[in-house]
Amino acid sequence: MTWQADILTLFPEMFPGPLGCSLAGRALERNLWACRTHDLRPFGRGVHKALDDAPFGGGAGMVMRPDVLDDALTSVRQADDGRPVIYPTPRGHRLEQKDIARYVQGEGVVILCGRFEGVDERVLEKHAIEQVCMGDFVLSGGEIPALALLDGCVRLLPGVMGSALSGEEESFSAGLLEYPQYTRPATWEGRDVPPVLLSGNHGEIARWRDEKSIAVTRTRRPDLWAVYEQQQQS
Amino acid sequence: MTWQADILTLFPEMFPGPLGCSLAGRALERNLWACRTHDLRPFGRGVHKALDDAPFGGGAGMVMRPDVLDDALTSVRQADDGRPVIYPTPRGHRLEQKDIARYVQGEGVVILCGRFEGVDERVLEKHAIEQVCMGDFVLSGGEIPALALLDGCVRLLPGVMGSALSGEEESFSAGLLEYPQYTRPATWEGRDVPPVLLSGNHGEIARWRDEKSIAVTRTRRPDLWAVYEQQQQS
Repeated sequence: MTWQADILTLFPEMFPGPLGCSLAGRALERNLWACRTHDLRPFGRGVHKALDDAPFGGGAGMVMRPDVLDDALTSVRQADDGRPVIYPTPRGHRLEQKDIARYVQGEGVVILCGRFEGVDERVLEKHAIEQVCMGDFVLSGGEIPALALLDGCVRLLPGVMGSALSGEEESFSAGLLEYPQYTRPATWEGRDVPPVLLSGNHGEIARWRDEKSIAVTRTRRPDLWAVYEQQQQS
Repeated sequence: MTWQADILTLFPEMFPGPLGCSLAGRALERNLWACRTHDLRPFGRGVHKALDDAPFGGGAGMVMRPDVLDDALTSVRQADDGRPVIYPTPRGHRLEQKDIARYVQGEGVVILCGRFEGVDERVLEKHAIEQVCMGDFVLSGGEIPALALLDGCVRLLPGVMGSALSGEEESFSAGLLEYPQYTRPATWEGRDVPPVLLSGNHGEIARWRDEKSIAVTRTRRPDLWAVYEQQQQS
């Protein structure tokens, strides 16, 4: 069965967008996955097809109505639909590679893209919606996070990359950032490749790369380094 | 002067993509920012216009050549170009709202999108390239992270959102996730809005929201919670 992504959005024209090109685009043509978009607007209420309303208790911004989103979700999900419903939001847990691996194991995903202050909490509860966050920065909506999430999933679907799995997975699973890379030319603008990499001594090369991985992780990602150190001690 | 984004990529057709719609798209039409793409392929070497080569020291994957990327960057950057050059990569520091605020203050950004195992370290050094990471998940290339970064920037440019700044910024600067939101209908499918939000008692509402913010932050983002607690103590 084809891995199926359903996306609820006010901007269906944003999809498949960049996922229509390159690896994901070829996989789409080969039906290794499917991408269906659903315009939220027709589900709105009243003559203006309003999707949102003012928050109870006051405050800036607007909140998407639970009844509107429930109608939209119900129209997309089958009774036996076991796919997770995902809502990208700064309030979510951080998206990690293990989440993507989990989504890929299933039959697909349903993604709800917000464009307002927030979503009524009751519809999040009713549909057990998984709230995920890309990072601690603010975007104009959930559409680009949805593209990122789908790109991360599609590349792992069977047949998409063949055996050409990148080394980055291993890098993340080891808990350290990758060492620096060098390629031809060996000397470029007076800058030489570190001699150890040309030595042919595999033990030395591995040791050098480990040291560099540790150094870059400590500098750029003290959070990952703390976890790594703890694991080494236990 | 218009805020200028230059993007070096193997897939120029991915841009402006979703940034051609909605808020960013209207800002593009109004020349509040400009988006220029540059195909990396013509800068490649040999009859096949190769951009990459095997890594020195061995290992899986290919590495983008320093001379190729240097040519491409030099063609884009002016001598007095003060814009940061940004390379989205899992090896980078985590992109945060304060980075986006910094990019917006300047004249624009140059973004290098990778599609291979990595980039030769020497060209990263020569151009003082800033390596940023969206999160701990692997994507097929730097293009979607570039779209995310630009979306985050464009919404903050003068004139793009007018005075309609969302409350999310304040949420991030307070260091806690936002409280749950509710809107009409007040009762929906047997689920009531929490009565305190209908009370009109602003002190009670603020207290309830603070409690909820703390609870959701502790559960979903123990990392943010740890920082917040430390700040409260000092």
